[in-house]
Amino acid sequence: MEPNSSSNDNNKMQLQHHSSCLEIAAMEVHRVVPPPHKSTIEKLKRRLKETFFPDDPLRQFKGQPLGKKWILAAQYIFPILEWGPNYSFKLFKSDIISGLTIASLAIPQGISYAKLANLPPIVGLYSSFVPPLVYTVLGSSRDLAVGPVSIASLIMGSMLRQEVSPTQNPVLFLQLAFTATFFGGLVQASLGLLRLGFIIDFLSKATLIGFMAGAAIIVSLQQLKSLLGITHFTNQMGLIPVMSSVFHNTKEWSWQTILMGFCFLVFLLLTRHVGTKRPKLFWVSAGAPLVSVILSTLLVFAFKAQHHGISVIGKLQEGLNPPSWNMLKFHGSHLGLVMKTGLITGIISLTEGIAVGRTFAALKNYQVDGNKEMIAIGVMNIVGSSTSCYITTGAFSRSAVNHNAGAKTAVSNVVMSVTVMVTLLFLMPLFQYTPNVVLGAIIVTAVVGLIDVPAAHQIWKIDKFDFLVMLCAFLGVVFISVQEGLAIAVGISIFKILLQITRPKTVMLGNMPGSDIYRDLHHYNEAIRIPGFLILSIEAPINFANTTYLNERILRWIEEYEAEENLNKQSSLRFVILEMSAVSAIDTSGTSFFKDLRKAMEKKGVELVLVNPLAEVLEKLQRSDDSGDFKRPDSLYLTVGEAVASLSSTIKAPSANYV
Amino acid sequence: MEPNSSSNDNNKMQLQHHSSCLEIAAMEVHRVVPPPHKSTIEKLKRRLKETFFPDDPLRQFKGQPLGKKWILAAQYIFPILEWGPNYSFKLFKSDIISGLTIASLAIPQGISYAKLANLPPIVGLYSSFVPPLVYTVLGSSRDLAVGPVSIASLIMGSMLRQEVSPTQNPVLFLQLAFTATFFGGLVQASLGLLRLGFIIDFLSKATLIGFMAGAAIIVSLQQLKSLLGITHFTNQMGLIPVMSSVFHNTKEWSWQTILMGFCFLVFLLLTRHVGTKRPKLFWVSAGAPLVSVILSTLLVFAFKAQHHGISVIGKLQEGLNPPSWNMLKFHGSHLGLVMKTGLITGIISLTEGIAVGRTFAALKNYQVDGNKEMIAIGVMNIVGSSTSCYITTGAFSRSAVNHNAGAKTAVSNVVMSVTVMVTLLFLMPLFQYTPNVVLGAIIVTAVVGLIDVPAAHQIWKIDKFDFLVMLCAFLGVVFISVQEGLAIAVGISIFKILLQITRPKTVMLGNMPGSDIYRDLHHYNEAIRIPGFLILSIEAPINFANTTYLNERILRWIEEYEAEENLNKQSSLRFVILEMSAVSAIDTSGTSFFKDLRKAMEKKGVELVLVNPLAEVLEKLQRSDDSGDFKRPDSLYLTVGEAVASLSSTIKAPSANYV
Repeated sequence: MEPNSSSNDNNKMQLQHHSSCLEIAAMEVHRVVPPPHKSTIEKLKRRLKETFFPDDPLRQFKGQPLGKKWILAAQYIFPILEWGPNYSFKLFKSDIISGLTIASLAIPQGISYAKLANLPPIVGLYSSFVPPLVYTVLGSSRDLAVGPVSIASLIMGSMLRQEVSPTQNPVLFLQLAFTATFFGGLVQASLGLLRLGFIIDFLSKATLIGFMAGAAIIVSLQQLKSLLGITHFTNQMGLIPVMSSVFHNTKEWSWQTILMGFCFLVFLLLTRHVGTKRPKLFWVSAGAPLVSVILSTLLVFAFKAQHHGISVIGKLQEGLNPPSWNMLKFHGSHLGLVMKTGLITGIISLTEGIAVGRTFAALKNYQVDGNKEMIAIGVMNIVGSSTSCYITTGAFSRSAVNHNAGAKTAVSNVVMSVTVMVTLLFLMPLFQYTPNVVLGAIIVTAVVGLIDVPAAHQIWKIDKFDFLVMLCAFLGVVFISVQEGLAIAVGISIFKILLQITRPKTVMLGNMPGSDIYRDLHHYNEAIRIPGFLILSIEAPINFANTTYLNERILRWIEEYEAEENLNKQSSLRFVILEMSAVSAIDTSGTSFFKDLRKAMEKKGVELVLVNPLAEVLEKLQRSDDSGDFKRPDSLYLTVGEAVASLSSTIKAPSANYV
Repeated sequence: MEPNSSSNDNNKMQLQHHSSCLEIAAMEVHRVVPPPHKSTIEKLKRRLKETFFPDDPLRQFKGQPLGKKWILAAQYIFPILEWGPNYSFKLFKSDIISGLTIASLAIPQGISYAKLANLPPIVGLYSSFVPPLVYTVLGSSRDLAVGPVSIASLIMGSMLRQEVSPTQNPVLFLQLAFTATFFGGLVQASLGLLRLGFIIDFLSKATLIGFMAGAAIIVSLQQLKSLLGITHFTNQMGLIPVMSSVFHNTKEWSWQTILMGFCFLVFLLLTRHVGTKRPKLFWVSAGAPLVSVILSTLLVFAFKAQHHGISVIGKLQEGLNPPSWNMLKFHGSHLGLVMKTGLITGIISLTEGIAVGRTFAALKNYQVDGNKEMIAIGVMNIVGSSTSCYITTGAFSRSAVNHNAGAKTAVSNVVMSVTVMVTLLFLMPLFQYTPNVVLGAIIVTAVVGLIDVPAAHQIWKIDKFDFLVMLCAFLGVVFISVQEGLAIAVGISIFKILLQITRPKTVMLGNMPGSDIYRDLHHYNEAIRIPGFLILSIEAPINFANTTYLNERILRWIEEYEAEENLNKQSSLRFVILEMSAVSAIDTSGTSFFKDLRKAMEKKGVELVLVNPLAEVLEKLQRSDDSGDFKRPDSLYLTVGEAVASLSSTIKAPSANYV
């Protein structure tokens, strides 16, 4: 008998032990307390700080002596004061190599992108001279290579061309371009100063991938003009008008141009392929454009090819940037267009510059302050607009080359700038015989990298809706227009967010056996329902956009649950528990919703219980609650487990364990 | 020694007991499992169903025989078939009383509102005849009193007046009004058919309160024309132009008109006050307008007051609604304006109709199907537009009277309609001497009820931001224009939602002593930090709009936490636990964010642990995760408590309790 008795004892012990654990759980009900009081002003201050100063830019000033504060402030405004004093010859050696490398890329690209924007080629070189110097003083990225970029050039050129012809009225066109650059810079600097940098976050990654790919195709299509040697080309940008223009002018095609273009395009694409496959051979792809320019210029010069159907750049002016502040036009009939162009190109180029800066900062493990970068890029464009530069930013391809070439600080931009200066002063005549077809090939090679097929495939794999957004951006840009494609994609992205709010996810919870954890019944198969309880978790802020839906949906859920319970002959529904941990905010529509819901449930004999409302939500609920329902301890619990344990006792006859 | 030993034993027992409880907690770690597999099509179907058919309208059809299905379908389309067969004489007695009551209100209001829309007074009566009959067949609310309403009348009149003068070109103006009504009905029915009813939810309660109060003031200002007897009145609507027009024409003021207007206004406001204070005396306020019309008409007739500066309606045509489908103009230069007018008045009147229907349905505890109501109201306006009616909907004030007068079904609308028909056929000549000033007083009395000061005060108490939205709507309507005020308020409301997403709330959690519950450290003072752990709860979907913010914010939080721990000489940070219960969705930017965050943390020697990601989020994270980091069991836990318990053992030397 002894062993048996012992096992019996053991069983008893376990039972006792188990029940005493339960007892602890049942007795220790944590009260939901109102959060510590804060005045409206305090709350507003906190909210504003989190919205506009989430990075707390002044935290390093705290507790510093006044002299140090002045130094910190100067360093804050001019980051060059931060790294400049520690600059060494060793760093300079790295910077000079990378600076020369990006200069060899910047000179042909500058000329090409200026032509893409329908501007004189020399403006592209001007824009690679002044803005990099400004950025060196103000910018906080160490890898950004500053200068004109393809997409912003394309957009500026195509938008301004809507009202003014660059061939018939080149001076006015140039004036508008500088003025648009000024507005672009103003928008960029304002976004930074007003700390509204989050506006560029609304261009999602998916949108940008689709947009960039579309823009790359549009840019490449424009190059068909120089690659095929066509003289009468359409002014439109879309796929269909360009292709129809190309095939309507087949007799203008020049075989010499096509042959030359084909050869250099193959050469450039091959070197690009080498450069991307082996980052150590970055100089192959970085030097190829300049080599192509020199080689093709020599070829044209040697064979006098300009008389055989190959068009060349022609004579270029020598000298440094002339001042252009007298060319800024803040009045007249084109002001609206110019401001719109400035706004769009400003935001697009800002997005590229910030994204590039962040990418390389993450690689080298340092921080880039988004708002400060915006001010730097903005000021750089404002200064640029009065020194004959058009819109510039940090270019992705050149920054990658800069990074691979071992750039350590922004001094590589200074090296590039000086190289461009030397070119402007002494080497301009050499470009006279450079054929346009090579510039076209350089542009196509540069923008091919913007089409990111693996990223698109990854998006398809992860999120079908994001893929749709990407596709809309891509097709919109290719078939409608660059601006409208972008607008459509942003619109759809925002619509998705609003839809998520309008139809918030609501999850039915069940108990994980042997614990007081409650989780999604549809996700965890082992989770079980508790008879008499309907436990729902609402997964969104409750506001005007979703109260109607939530009200009807929850009442219908109760109906369904009751119908099912009746079918299973279980005890009828007594409590609806709303798990509120995920309700981050509530407005007045939301507080009314709870009152209405409670009333509707009372008519059905069901009680509403809230679990773990967040501080702000709890406060608003209690303030709106005249009847005091949301202050009663039996309608507010800290966890679902405690709510179920405590309320179960009111359903069943209280057993010894639940005293 | 014995007692001591016993107490010692007791202590041991307790310790043992406690440790065995902990042991259970430490050993039973629940695994996070991937959710049951579902194909993309299934997910899409589910998502679409929840977005467009959250009410599952076909659920009653399930499992019914075919014949029954036909009957149900007919009842679904024509709700009259549902309640009609059970209609009894007892119900009819209630309906006839309430029908006559609302008719006595509808006749003077119809005439007044038509004048507000710059339409001939008789169109207001036409609009109280046909639409109620259509609604009786199609509508599912039992209390809605259908007819023209003040705000929609005001908006239609003011918008159409932008392009066509109602005095110089009355026929064209009437054509445009009917066409706008047609488009309004089309918009309403389409929203219902396409199940896009949630669009009207974007007019939040706060917006509507501000908007209605502003519109009430604008409407009242317009009545100064008839109340003061001014003949040269401004065409503008804003507070400033109307007041300046009023005080520039002081010599046009007619004391007879002012006296009469003042008397009737006081009478009407007093009866209205009685009606709202004592719902049983509803007939006092309901009958007052008709009494005023009759009394004032008799007065004018007796004293020949029309020759003494009191303007009267004048001769009105007799007879029922003439057909007007030949007056609908779907071409011409005004089409854009007409469509815009139809869209805005359609949505505004729909919002009022649906809100009124829902309010009274909740009072009487029955359901109103929003999308079905939209179709009913839309069809009613389409039919109305071809039978000389302008835009109609369920009016709040008249529906309240209808409800108080004991209306049981939509038959009260039929009774009202028949009464209006009798008026149209036989009683029109009686209105010839009705003075305009009384109509003005009736309108002012009706719209005063739209200014809801207690609700505004309640909003101020609960949510300051909602109050701001309300104020913007109010001031926008009063000082700019009705449409722009509304647009500004909706814009701000949506901006707030986007801001909530862009700057998601993130809460730092601490342990509630003696439990495995983790709650907000700033809300619950007793909650304590666990050394070596940073536990954050993210309270929003993670998407393109907030990944940049979250990335920087979390990294800064880690920095701060580490700085503080160093100060307190505590063990350094080892784990960052992200509680993901409240992250309802994620996109590709979100999945990249987690990868970047994990990489950045690895560089700091901190490990990232996720707790309770929802099914959809978990799936996307694992699909995007090539390295398999989010599949390792030690980076995924079901509760914070289990994560801390399980990971603590890796920090300290494992004790006997944590085997």
